[in-house]
Amino acid sequence: MPVYIAGIGLEAVKEHWDLSILDLATSAGQKALEDANINQVDYVLVANMTTEFSNRYANLSSAIADQLDLVKVPRYRIEAACGTGGSAVNLAYEIAKSEQKNVLVIGVEKLSDFLTPSNTSSMMLAEDWSTGLVAGGTFVTLNALALRYYLEKFNADHDYIMTLPVICHEHAVNNPYAQFRNKITLEKVKESPVIADPLHLFESSAYGDGAAAVVVSSNKGDVEIIASAVSTDLHKIATREDPLTFSAVKKAAKEAYEEAKVNFSDIDVLEIHDAFSITGVIALEDLGFAKKGEGWKMITHDNLSINGKIPTNTFGGLKARGHPVGATGVYQIAEIVLQLRGMAGKNQVESAKIGLAENIGAIATTAAIHIMRKKE
Amino acid sequence: MPVYIAGIGLEAVKEHWDLSILDLATSAGQKALEDANINQVDYVLVANMTTEFSNRYANLSSAIADQLDLVKVPRYRIEAACGTGGSAVNLAYEIAKSEQKNVLVIGVEKLSDFLTPSNTSSMMLAEDWSTGLVAGGTFVTLNALALRYYLEKFNADHDYIMTLPVICHEHAVNNPYAQFRNKITLEKVKESPVIADPLHLFESSAYGDGAAAVVVSSNKGDVEIIASAVSTDLHKIATREDPLTFSAVKKAAKEAYEEAKVNFSDIDVLEIHDAFSITGVIALEDLGFAKKGEGWKMITHDNLSINGKIPTNTFGGLKARGHPVGATGVYQIAEIVLQLRGMAGKNQVESAKIGLAENIGAIATTAAIHIMRKKE
Repeated sequence: MPVYIAGIGLEAVKEHWDLSILDLATSAGQKALEDANINQVDYVLVANMTTEFSNRYANLSSAIADQLDLVKVPRYRIEAACGTGGSAVNLAYEIAKSEQKNVLVIGVEKLSDFLTPSNTSSMMLAEDWSTGLVAGGTFVTLNALALRYYLEKFNADHDYIMTLPVICHEHAVNNPYAQFRNKITLEKVKESPVIADPLHLFESSAYGDGAAAVVVSSNKGDVEIIASAVSTDLHKIATREDPLTFSAVKKAAKEAYEEAKVNFSDIDVLEIHDAFSITGVIALEDLGFAKKGEGWKMITHDNLSINGKIPTNTFGGLKARGHPVGATGVYQIAEIVLQLRGMAGKNQVESAKIGLAENIGAIATTAAIHIMRKKE
Repeated sequence: MPVYIAGIGLEAVKEHWDLSILDLATSAGQKALEDANINQVDYVLVANMTTEFSNRYANLSSAIADQLDLVKVPRYRIEAACGTGGSAVNLAYEIAKSEQKNVLVIGVEKLSDFLTPSNTSSMMLAEDWSTGLVAGGTFVTLNALALRYYLEKFNADHDYIMTLPVICHEHAVNNPYAQFRNKITLEKVKESPVIADPLHLFESSAYGDGAAAVVVSSNKGDVEIIASAVSTDLHKIATREDPLTFSAVKKAAKEAYEEAKVNFSDIDVLEIHDAFSITGVIALEDLGFAKKGEGWKMITHDNLSINGKIPTNTFGGLKARGHPVGATGVYQIAEIVLQLRGMAGKNQVESAKIGLAENIGAIATTAAIHIMRKKE
């Protein structure tokens, strides 16, 4: 049966020193329930990557459900690295498509409490830390290597790639939930420190706390999920044949387009997982919007701005809306819903009918792709 | 459509100093795939409670899937405290019941690597640690309070309750995967140290490493899951009206009996979650086998032994087979399958046709109940 998004709830991405992870999740969840105008659900799925080491919670979904007065409801935490949010929505979709069910998905991440010296090293727990981390492998350095390889192999112009954060920051200005609401120029990106050659600081998403929730429902809703597809790839990027192709994204996209019976050219509004500028570029290619090696040429205002050919990351993307790890995929989906509902304010994409959200875990070890359509 | 268990895989519960969490999970998963005679699945769900702090893994399901050559398959980690295993099977059931699908569920826990001073305190992360732990609340002390209250309120004979570990140890003798394969006497339980008055050491399950896997399938299998029900309760036992009633178990049991169209009296073989002797007693009551306050009278060899009226924990239960937290619920289900297949060796329950497994998280914050029937 058709599955809808019946409600959404968003919290600002920032350092929430005044709120606990429970406060954040509860607030987003409550908003989504109110938006859906329901007070009971059949499942609660909590999407979170790091709580055990960042906040010292186990059984997090139970603690959150209590705050929401959702007693007697099955509730689980789901984890699949940075792809956690999209993955949880995929599971909710699987649950809701066979029977009349409402599933509350709450993505939440609270990193500000985290007392270990390096978030960057800790995030590497999601990749090949046992051998890779000791050799200097982190998501920053691995993505820098990918960027370097990409620039060389395809003779790409780095200025184009560095334009992605510029566009994202422009979009975030009008998003009250965004982490960075200031515009930046290409010059500013180029002047920002090189954190791992050739990757600049402003080509990298930052850490932030945040929570986003959606009610996935086979009962009601104004936006239909017309495809939910997840695929995966080898855990360690070092073992893959081509580190510049996200085969999980390719396969999930193929499945999603088939399920939704649409093509990339039918997408009116797009969310890509720009944890780093280069992951955004590769996503554009593997989603079908550009040929392999030519994604960088697409990174222009003419293409990606609100009034562009394919408006992308219209609320700021991971770079500027922020990347509260396990919550990110849920933010993306909620933002597509805002666009399809016509509630995107100054950033509204005119007559947007179909949107796609691409969320990945680790370096596209997991890819979760959702295509949504406005209910006529 | 009907959902079956198509294959199972078990590892011994013990201190696995020579194996990583990946090794353990991979071995159990491989055995389950071989037992099901398949080499591809649609989903991998990894049931694990503590890996982020005990083994420093995030994205665990991805690392495990790699070892199993299950590339391109969606894979997630599921967490719901000690009820993680049963919860993951419930999600697998939800996924498989609407479409032809095979889901590999791997429960795994590796606690021996865990370097924090106290497992007991750390486990409390799954309950009210923020206020409860600092007041001395751990699962040991909370269950001791429940036991004390139970003994007083119902004028129960503690000797009966202490007979549960005696029976469990007897059953474990013939289980090659059990953590403790020695018989113990009632005297020995009574002589064991009181770890929190009136609870004895031998009334408490121990920590152990382990992995168990099942293939949940709508395509094939010799044991049908005729009910999968999960319910939940308030997160903190201190906030519940009656700490001696597991309302999550009651509700899930009611739903499961209705779905399976059977009654408690139809159950031929039973697995209860005896993390502590008292949790086993309360389970017998809330599953319908005894009236409230009379569960303790059932704890006799006549009732619970292999040839008893309702053979219970026939592989040793949490006390003697062991309690590798996130894997426990999967062990229970695999053991019911062994009984229904007639492959329980010396502990075979004669003509067992219907089995029930009760798995709880925290102090029955979550209850996952599965009823299985031998395919005719």
